[in-house]
Amino acid sequence: MTLLQFYVDDIIKAALKEDVNYIDTTTGLLLDEDKQTEAYFVSKAEGVLCGIDVAKRVFEMLDDKIKFKAYFKDGDKIKKGDVIAEMTGSAKFLLIGERTALNLIQHMSGIATATNRLVTLCEGTNAAVTDTRKTLPGLRGLQKYAVTCGGGKNHRFNLSDGAMLKDNHIDAGGGITATVNKLREKLGHMVKIEVETRNLDEVKEAVESGCEVIMLDNMDCETMKKAVEIVSGRALCEASGNVCEETIRAIAETGVDIISVGAITHSVAAFDISMRIKA
Amino acid sequence: MTLLQFYVDDIIKAALKEDVNYIDTTTGLLLDEDKQTEAYFVSKAEGVLCGIDVAKRVFEMLDDKIKFKAYFKDGDKIKKGDVIAEMTGSAKFLLIGERTALNLIQHMSGIATATNRLVTLCEGTNAAVTDTRKTLPGLRGLQKYAVTCGGGKNHRFNLSDGAMLKDNHIDAGGGITATVNKLREKLGHMVKIEVETRNLDEVKEAVESGCEVIMLDNMDCETMKKAVEIVSGRALCEASGNVCEETIRAIAETGVDIISVGAITHSVAAFDISMRIKA
Amino acid sequence: MTLLQFYVDDIIKAALKEDVNYIDTTTGLLLDEDKQTEAYFVSKAEGVLCGIDVAKRVFEMLDDKIKFKAYFKDGDKIKKGDVIAEMTGSAKFLLIGERTALNLIQHMSGIATATNRLVTLCEGTNAAVTDTRKTLPGLRGLQKYAVTCGGGKNHRFNLSDGAMLKDNHIDAGGGITATVNKLREKLGHMVKIEVETRNLDEVKEAVESGCEVIMLDNMDCETMKKAVEIVSGRALCEASGNVCEETIRAIAETGVDIISVGAITHSVAAFDISMRIKA
Amino acid sequence: MTLLQFYVDDIIKAALKEDVNYIDTTTGLLLDEDKQTEAYFVSKAEGVLCGIDVAKRVFEMLDDKIKFKAYFKDGDKIKKGDVIAEMTGSAKFLLIGERTALNLIQHMSGIATATNRLVTLCEGTNAAVTDTRKTLPGLRGLQKYAVTCGGGKNHRFNLSDGAMLKDNHIDAGGGITATVNKLREKLGHMVKIEVETRNLDEVKEAVESGCEVIMLDNMDCETMKKAVEIVSGRALCEASGNVCEETIRAIAETGVDIISVGAITHSVAAFDISMRIKA
Amino acid sequence: MTLLQFYVDDIIKAALKEDVNYIDTTTGLLLDEDKQTEAYFVSKAEGVLCGIDVAKRVFEMLDDKIKFKAYFKDGDKIKKGDVIAEMTGSAKFLLIGERTALNLIQHMSGIATATNRLVTLCEGTNAAVTDTRKTLPGLRGLQKYAVTCGGGKNHRFNLSDGAMLKDNHIDAGGGITATVNKLREKLGHMVKIEVETRNLDEVKEAVESGCEVIMLDNMDCETMKKAVEIVSGRALCEASGNVCEETIRAIAETGVDIISVGAITHSVAAFDISMRIKA
Amino acid sequence: MTLLQFYVDDIIKAALKEDVNYIDTTTGLLLDEDKQTEAYFVSKAEGVLCGIDVAKRVFEMLDDKIKFKAYFKDGDKIKKGDVIAEMTGSAKFLLIGERTALNLIQHMSGIATATNRLVTLCEGTNAAVTDTRKTLPGLRGLQKYAVTCGGGKNHRFNLSDGAMLKDNHIDAGGGITATVNKLREKLGHMVKIEVETRNLDEVKEAVESGCEVIMLDNMDCETMKKAVEIVSGRALCEASGNVCEETIRAIAETGVDIISVGAITHSVAAFDISMRIKA
Repeated sequence: MTLLQFYVDDIIKAALKEDVNYIDTTTGLLLDEDKQTEAYFVSKAEGVLCGIDVAKRVFEMLDDKIKFKAYFKDGDKIKKGDVIAEMTGSAKFLLIGERTALNLIQHMSGIATATNRLVTLCEGTNAAVTDTRKTLPGLRGLQKYAVTCGGGKNHRFNLSDGAMLKDNHIDAGGGITATVNKLREKLGHMVKIEVETRNLDEVKEAVESGCEVIMLDNMDCETMKKAVEIVSGRALCEASGNVCEETIRAIAETGVDIISVGAITHSVAAFDISMRIKA
Repeated sequence: MTLLQFYVDDIIKAALKEDVNYIDTTTGLLLDEDKQTEAYFVSKAEGVLCGIDVAKRVFEMLDDKIKFKAYFKDGDKIKKGDVIAEMTGSAKFLLIGERTALNLIQHMSGIATATNRLVTLCEGTNAAVTDTRKTLPGLRGLQKYAVTCGGGKNHRFNLSDGAMLKDNHIDAGGGITATVNKLREKLGHMVKIEVETRNLDEVKEAVESGCEVIMLDNMDCETMKKAVEIVSGRALCEASGNVCEETIRAIAETGVDIISVGAITHSVAAFDISMRIKA
Repeated sequence: MTLLQFYVDDIIKAALKEDVNYIDTTTGLLLDEDKQTEAYFVSKAEGVLCGIDVAKRVFEMLDDKIKFKAYFKDGDKIKKGDVIAEMTGSAKFLLIGERTALNLIQHMSGIATATNRLVTLCEGTNAAVTDTRKTLPGLRGLQKYAVTCGGGKNHRFNLSDGAMLKDNHIDAGGGITATVNKLREKLGHMVKIEVETRNLDEVKEAVESGCEVIMLDNMDCETMKKAVEIVSGRALCEASGNVCEETIRAIAETGVDIISVGAITHSVAAFDISMRIKA
Repeated sequence: MTLLQFYVDDIIKAALKEDVNYIDTTTGLLLDEDKQTEAYFVSKAEGVLCGIDVAKRVFEMLDDKIKFKAYFKDGDKIKKGDVIAEMTGSAKFLLIGERTALNLIQHMSGIATATNRLVTLCEGTNAAVTDTRKTLPGLRGLQKYAVTCGGGKNHRFNLSDGAMLKDNHIDAGGGITATVNKLREKLGHMVKIEVETRNLDEVKEAVESGCEVIMLDNMDCETMKKAVEIVSGRALCEASGNVCEETIRAIAETGVDIISVGAITHSVAAFDISMRIKA
Repeated sequence: MTLLQFYVDDIIKAALKEDVNYIDTTTGLLLDEDKQTEAYFVSKAEGVLCGIDVAKRVFEMLDDKIKFKAYFKDGDKIKKGDVIAEMTGSAKFLLIGERTALNLIQHMSGIATATNRLVTLCEGTNAAVTDTRKTLPGLRGLQKYAVTCGGGKNHRFNLSDGAMLKDNHIDAGGGITATVNKLREKLGHMVKIEVETRNLDEVKEAVESGCEVIMLDNMDCETMKKAVEIVSGRALCEASGNVCEETIRAIAETGVDIISVGAITHSVAAFDISMRIKA
Repeated sequence: MTLLQFYVDDIIKAALKEDVNYIDTTTGLLLDEDKQTEAYFVSKAEGVLCGIDVAKRVFEMLDDKIKFKAYFKDGDKIKKGDVIAEMTGSAKFLLIGERTALNLIQHMSGIATATNRLVTLCEGTNAAVTDTRKTLPGLRGLQKYAVTCGGGKNHRFNLSDGAMLKDNHIDAGGGITATVNKLREKLGHMVKIEVETRNLDEVKEAVESGCEVIMLDNMDCETMKKAVEIVSGRALCEASGNVCEETIRAIAETGVDIISVGAITHSVAAFDISMRIKA
């Protein structure tokens, strides 16, 4: 897993804390800590797995004696019926951890799967699919990691590691060129500047300003095609707005380098995975 | 807002922390702290608002001098074009808080809206719509609150405040009756017991066991109707499994008391709200 | 242990942090980390043990090489002179952890022991002994767990998982019946409603309102007996107020189902346990 | 208040978090946020008040518009029937905060009152009453502050700010004199050394070692009197063990400087204070 | 201040918590909370101020009634004797906060001042001075902000927001070109790649690889000059190693774009500022 | 290590969190988790090592399978070229942890080394070198521990564990004698009182007041010598102000017991240690 353990552990601990005030009134009162069992995760759908190590870690944090054997790793394609992992150990802690582990792996696999569908639709074009900052509070790292597992790329992580000039910044800075110059003077040399544009005049000014990335905001495909021609490799072109499975191929074929999609993180459908206890 | 401020503040702070390492490289470097502006939230869709006080709190936590005037409150119906709230104050902090505020209000309104569609579909029947424990890590309270704003009700909050007997518990406890009895002996008197059933025989045993709620797990409508007859008011009947906008009316008409739906919290579509800065 | 480790670990870490700013000026400066020793816990009184796994965890968190062998488990009766557990390992960390481990096990065993005395006094009656929300800040889970080890049961954990109507709620809601109805409409189906009553008229109205539990608040035994008759099994009756070792038997004999006692968590006498280092 | 706000706020927040998962199912669902009321705290017993500012802070943290007027301050004597403070504001937040505020003020006043009884019993002697490290996890600062409000003094706060040589340290260090010397060499000059002694020979060696405080551990009064004579002002003498209201006067009359008592923090009886809502 | 308040507050709270266990034994016991006083910060040296809002916030967090009037702002030049700010309010909280406020402002001003000396030495050249990741644990944001106040720029904030290829990465990736290509495929489009080089051959390969920044690691000025010529504007050149006040001018004159300096954050000399209480 | 692990772990976790938002874009994307390597720490200077166990713990927290073999321990003298420790394990995690581990060990060794130079300069005199409260936010424990590794001693840890009377306290208390008496009455018996003096008259009054330590604040050596004579062993004398490597010997020869130095913690030069990966 590329995600670091201390990052993941904090999220899992928060999830467990909200799922148990102090005891599990059902499992905690009924099951003996010594009772051993075997369980497994099975896929109920077709898609891209993500979060297998996170799920494993849920059980480890509850009981480090639980054995967790994964048959797939993050980024792997899975199909309906695939046994994803097998767990052996305390029945009590397997049941207590079940929901938290599933909530995480289903959400992450949902993101990876949705991303992957978009990536596949862009195959053969120049366009990469990226996420945005439209993520769920406290889960950005998990979500952005899941995007990469689905074959997407990450946009800037947050407000500190990339500069994005929107109309309000440009108004405050006195036009695109002046603003880019003003910002470049203060900005660290590792930070790229992206300029949001709404029409071809702005695209022209942006590309002359020397910014690294130009966002083509809510433009139609025809306009984007022209924008790509204007930019002509001097900056990266990012399409933004109205991206979905129906529209993405046409957008990709305009020649843009990047297509950013909010929905893959802000409107996630859980990927269906079940945990089954062996008889 | 029914949500307590200390609960909300922790989530907002986590969201802000992941959105800013230490500075906003764009807004922080370009905008003067003194520059004042006016902004507003506008709805881009039709649905139920949720999270207006949470959004307000985002701006307060960045700068307590920002004025936030809400025109709707949580639970209100909103339609496309409605101005939801107006903000006046530091342009810098309005821009820094924009994404975090929108991420929260869009997610919460998405839940309220989806819930409300299901609730509306059940109108005239006996059935209440409830959530499940299939929530996103760290966001359960926000999500469950949003469900109530959409007209739904909350299932148990977590493993500590309700007992749910699944097949593994029943196997461990020696059958439904024995398990309910065993658990009742240990359980606090404020905790209800729900028993998961998969067929009418189990329903019969469950209702005799004296449990308060019987889950009808993945049954067809015909079977559920019979289960409701068998139970005949001696316990609450909860339908679970395969619930969506297409199926819920028929399920509600079986006479069940509760229909629990995972999708309203595990597969949320963000509700589209924009922030606009006034010229 | 039914308590989950992540819950216990946070409490232990807080305790250790307030007991050591950064070093132990005595043990840390005098004892070699390599010096091994053997120690044991011995009971100085008669009662019910609680917190043995918590105490074990204190030492593990300081040094995971310490061996801790428990001779009793939570809920066991112990008497003066019983060796409760033996520890082998770094003398330094055994000494550093001693006070924190004892503070925890003494407090928890104090609760279990006091609870058990009350439970024993109710033997042969219908009455269960429960705790209240009168707990010490940050320790509610530990305390409620200790109550169960003493044979008591837990009342609602907090304001989220049970509804308790006091006079102020009832005034706000327009009388008992109206308030119960109003609340039932909004409340999740897993939450029980308890109504506080101060006289038999209120008891009558409460039982008709369909609430699950009726609190008989500060009533004399005669009145409680009548209340139990009125309720006649249609709700649970909870006696509250003036409960102590002297009064509890008479209260239990009124036929109430529940006797809730604040003192077992708000006025705890530590149970005397010592740690001794072997020569 | 001498306690710093950031210290107090963390404890209150932990208490509120364990008392509310996300909403108060009773007050939150029934009371309008706008409904105003008046309430007051009334003493149900005689003793020393402690925690009035902490209680005030509970309400402020829930709703900073609540007015809280205190008629007594920490350390004041209060008697049965005294109105301690009056609160005006949101009925909803007064009810939500009630239990947490009372749990804190009752515990702190319980400590102050018990301490004060011991201090009063020592009046006219040389002996000061102090606490120990036998405190409840996470509450040490609150508890030690309450001891001072009752007229007691604080022993060392923790393992970092005072050196206490017990038999195991002395054995490891090669006798009292060698150990004190060894420790003095490493110890900061602001840290005092206390030596635990079990008989007069040890007292003699301790006083010669130059330590600042000598603990007379579980000695009878006769022996303590001799010890005080031996020490003769060259160090402070601290009596420890078997201290209670019955024994403390005789111990104080032996001439010891300090009497340390675990019970005032490890076995606290809550001081009875009620909150009443005005009609 | 560009730093966000929630970021600063966490650092201040940690600092206050380690400076006060629960009470200030001197000021807390001697000074009345009501006693008002006036105090001021005075500069004892010449340099660049940084941390004035952080210092102000320390006092606010202790007592929000303290008035703090700043005469300089972050980034301003100050000289010996300058009164930097005046504070009016509770003498008690001014004394309690003094050390924490000074520790912060002295450290931050020390960084700004040292950075500014280097920046001044580079005046007239192309070279910008930047920090590194050689920062003190928990203080990176404060330190990097201070660098900007001194006229420096920030290098990447952390391992997530910039890619830096060292020899081990290049070995693992199969040479500079292969590694850059491999990384580019996975990397988000907002992240720049910097390649560490140790000789001119590596510089040549790096510039052809298309990386954005080339680090000239520990090269002498002659070699750096040649490297700059080779690169010829196709990438940014960053000088690293052996940078100090004595050497920086010569390095800057080689034509490099960036000079990164670890010492401005890992070896900071506190800038001398005193707090004086007015008679 | 005398530092406790839970204390160290919190600092390391904070350091790692600020160094990685969620992934390492370079190492995380390029290196296989399975790739094993060997690395070592080598000293680039002469001094006193400190922080070896802290550095070890950094790697353990990233990957508990990494083997870390230390050749020196805290407090050991090291010279240029010494191999301090060898690490074997995942190349990925060794590279990710490198900077955090080095930042910690370099800072701590810098403190130990600077302290040791001062301690060495005082050899043969009575004077001990101590730190102050002039430490960096969040790092006080680490820093004070490093001072002891360099042969220095620790002054009071914080405002809670030692009383230091400055002019403002003395003014508030009505002169030195009155203030010491007033404070002694309230202060715990384990807390020492230090009085700050600025001239010999104050020294005289201080020594008569019975305080344990007298600070000679910014006095010249001649005056300090006289102060030491006046005090004549009745209290400890602490020299403060203008202490550096050039001045300390003369100060030590005045006969003072303690020389406190802010610079060893507020103006630390990192001690140069490198991590090298074996081919």
